[in-house]
Amino acid sequence: MKRPIVSLILLLTWSIVILVSLPCFAVTMFPVSPETHSDRTITFRLFMPFAHKIDVSIDSGISLPMIKSDDGVWSVTTRPLVPDIYGYSFIVDGTTIADPMNTRYKSNMLTSASMVEVPANTPQPWDQTPIPHGDVHHHFYASTEANEQRDYYVYTPPEFHAGAAKRYPVLFLLHGFSDRANAWVEIGRANFILDTLIAHGKAKPMIVVMPLGYGVSNYAAHGSPNFGSAILTQQNFDIFQIILLTEVLPQVEKNYPILAGRKNRAIAGLSMGGSETLDTALNHRDKFAWVGSFSMGGLFNGVAKDDYLRIFPSLNHKSDSAPLLLWIACGTEDAFFPGNQKFIAWLQTLGMNPIVVQTPGGHDWSVWRRNLLNFLPLLFQEGHAG
Amino acid sequence: MKRPIVSLILLLTWSIVILVSLPCFAVTMFPVSPETHSDRTITFRLFMPFAHKIDVSIDSGISLPMIKSDDGVWSVTTRPLVPDIYGYSFIVDGTTIADPMNTRYKSNMLTSASMVEVPANTPQPWDQTPIPHGDVHHHFYASTEANEQRDYYVYTPPEFHAGAAKRYPVLFLLHGFSDRANAWVEIGRANFILDTLIAHGKAKPMIVVMPLGYGVSNYAAHGSPNFGSAILTQQNFDIFQIILLTEVLPQVEKNYPILAGRKNRAIAGLSMGGSETLDTALNHRDKFAWVGSFSMGGLFNGVAKDDYLRIFPSLNHKSDSAPLLLWIACGTEDAFFPGNQKFIAWLQTLGMNPIVVQTPGGHDWSVWRRNLLNFLPLLFQEGHAG
Repeated sequence: MKRPIVSLILLLTWSIVILVSLPCFAVTMFPVSPETHSDRTITFRLFMPFAHKIDVSIDSGISLPMIKSDDGVWSVTTRPLVPDIYGYSFIVDGTTIADPMNTRYKSNMLTSASMVEVPANTPQPWDQTPIPHGDVHHHFYASTEANEQRDYYVYTPPEFHAGAAKRYPVLFLLHGFSDRANAWVEIGRANFILDTLIAHGKAKPMIVVMPLGYGVSNYAAHGSPNFGSAILTQQNFDIFQIILLTEVLPQVEKNYPILAGRKNRAIAGLSMGGSETLDTALNHRDKFAWVGSFSMGGLFNGVAKDDYLRIFPSLNHKSDSAPLLLWIACGTEDAFFPGNQKFIAWLQTLGMNPIVVQTPGGHDWSVWRRNLLNFLPLLFQEGHAG
Repeated sequence: MKRPIVSLILLLTWSIVILVSLPCFAVTMFPVSPETHSDRTITFRLFMPFAHKIDVSIDSGISLPMIKSDDGVWSVTTRPLVPDIYGYSFIVDGTTIADPMNTRYKSNMLTSASMVEVPANTPQPWDQTPIPHGDVHHHFYASTEANEQRDYYVYTPPEFHAGAAKRYPVLFLLHGFSDRANAWVEIGRANFILDTLIAHGKAKPMIVVMPLGYGVSNYAAHGSPNFGSAILTQQNFDIFQIILLTEVLPQVEKNYPILAGRKNRAIAGLSMGGSETLDTALNHRDKFAWVGSFSMGGLFNGVAKDDYLRIFPSLNHKSDSAPLLLWIACGTEDAFFPGNQKFIAWLQTLGMNPIVVQTPGGHDWSVWRRNLLNFLPLLFQEGHAG
C-alpha cells in the first residue's frame, strides 16, 4: 500500500548514513567493534591513526595491547572468555575512552567504559528472556539530608499488581563507589536475575529498593573538591545511612505494599555498598535480619582488630536480634580479599557465624551478578539461621 | 564515634585514585572537561598528545577546532550559549568519541556523545527542582510482532497513586531514529517538563507512554544488515504501528488507569517518531485526537504532491473524526524544514488546518524539549479545535 515511499525513506536513510560518515567516507573509520566470535573470543577495533600506544582493559583484569594496521585501525582478539557481560575501555596514550563504535555505555561517574556480552549456549540468568518480567520504577525526590534532588529505583516482581492486597518482603540493594543509582539494573541486571529466580521458584517474590549510595553530594564526581577529603568521606557513610533510614525507607514503605519488621527486610551491597550494608545492618539489627556484603571495600580494610568494636560497639553483647543471614562474599583475586577475611575472623571470635563465600574473580560485576544470584534464594526463608 | 576509620577510608579513596590514574600519574591526562563558565561559555579539553586534528561538534550545529598545547591537552572555549542541555562529541582524526572526562553519556544507538548543561539564572522547565515529581516506570515484555524482547517507559503524574480511582488521558511519545526507548526521559527530560507544567497548572495530569520506536529488530544498530534496506525500512514503519496499537497500547490500558476513547488519547514524536506519529494518527483518526509532529523526517520528505494520498487515502474525504489538534513543528534550520512545509501546504489544500510552528534551531533536542513544553499545554482541553 505504501510502496512509492520506499525509495524516499531510503533517501532519508542514506542521508543519515552520509551525515554520520562525515567528515570522510573511509570504511576504516567505522570498524566493527566489538565483534564477538562463536568461539567466545572478542575482537576489539579502533580507528586512531596517529596514536602511539593503545591497550584494551577488560573486566576480570584482562589488559591487552592493540596492534595498528596500515589503515590506521588498531585491533586485538582475546582468548576465549567465560560467557558474561564485560566492561572494557580503550587506553589511548593514557586517556581512557569508551569504545566509540559500541554505544552500550557502562554508566559510571568516574570511568568511561563500554559493555560487551559473550553469549552462552543457553540464556544466562541475567538475560531478558521470554518469562514474566517485573517492572523497574524510577522515583525522584528532594533529599533534606543531602540537600539536593535525588533519585532511586524500585523493582516490583512480575506478579505484583498495584492496588492488590498482597504484601512483599523488601531488599535494599546498594551500589559501589562511582556508580549511579541505576547500576544494579543497567550493569548488574538485578531485575532480570530476580525475574529468572522467581520464575524458577528459587527466590521469593520481593520488592527491591536501589537508592543512590552517597551521603555527600558529588562525592564520586570527577574534579569534585570532596574527593579524598577525610571529613567528607566519613560524612558520606554517616549521612547515607540517615538518608536510607529516614528518607528512602519511609517513602517506599508508604508507597509500596511492603511487609513490616526486620524479618521481612534485607540489605545487601557491593564494594562501598558492602561496607554501607554492614555499617547499617550491624548497627541496626532491629531493622534488618538478612544481610549480604559483596566485595566490601573501604570501611574495614586495614582496620586493626581492636578498632572493629569502635565501629560496632554493640556486637560485643550477645543479642536476640542477630542477623538471620550474614553472608559475606569476596572474589579471591580482589584487592579487598584480605581485609574481608580479617573482618570475618573477628566476627567469628564474637561467636557470630557468617556464611563466608569465596569465589574466583576480582573487583567487578562478573562476581557481583553471581553473588546476587546465589544470595537471593537465601532470603526470607523460614527457619533459616545464618 | 568513627574517627579511627577515617584514615582507612582515605586509604581506599586514594587507592581508587591511583587505580584510575594508571598507567601514569600526569595531571594533564585528566583535564577538567567540560568546564561551564559563569558567562555561559564552555571550555572543552582532551588529552590526546599524538592526534593531528580534533574538533568538538556541539548540538545547534556548532563545530569548533580544538588547539593543542605543549602538554598534549587539546582545548577550545565556545561563545556564550543559550542556557540548555547540549550534546557534543570530539572528532579525533575522524573518529567520533564521547568526552572521556564527562560521564554524562548521551544514550544513542549510533553515535558516541556526551551531554553538558549551561545553567540559566533560574531553573529550566526540564531541571529536577523541588516540586512534586512523577515516576518513570520501565516495563519489559516479549514482542510477538518484532520477535524479540522489548521495553517501554511509562510516566505517571505526581498526583498518581496506584489503585486510586482517578483515570487519566494518555500521550504516546515517540523518539527519533537511532534513539533508545529511554531517549525522551534521559535526553529530553520529558518527565521533568511534565512535572513543571503540571505543578504550574499549565498541563493536565496525564500518563505518558514511551515505546521503542522500531518495527524491525536492530534497525538502527551499527553494522546491522538491515540498515539502508528498502524493504526493511518500510517494514520498520508498518510493524512499529502494529506493535504500538496491538501490543503496547493494550498493555498500558490494562495496567494503568487510562481514560478510553480518542479524545483522551494523544500521540507525538520527533524526527522518525514525527513521521510515525502522522502515519499512525492520520490513518487511525478514530484512535487519536491530539497529534504532534516535531521535525518529522523520512516519511514525507521529497514526496511528490500526488503521492501523499497514497499514504493517507482517507484524508481525501471529509470526516467527523479529524484531529482536535494537529500540531506540526520544525526548526527553520532543520534539513527537513522544506519537506515539512510542503506537507503542511498539502494538508491545507484538503481543508485541514494544522497549527504550524516554526522555531529557530536545527535537528536536535534543544528544539524538541521546547516543542514538548509548548505542545503539552494544548492537550485534552475541552472545546479546542486545532
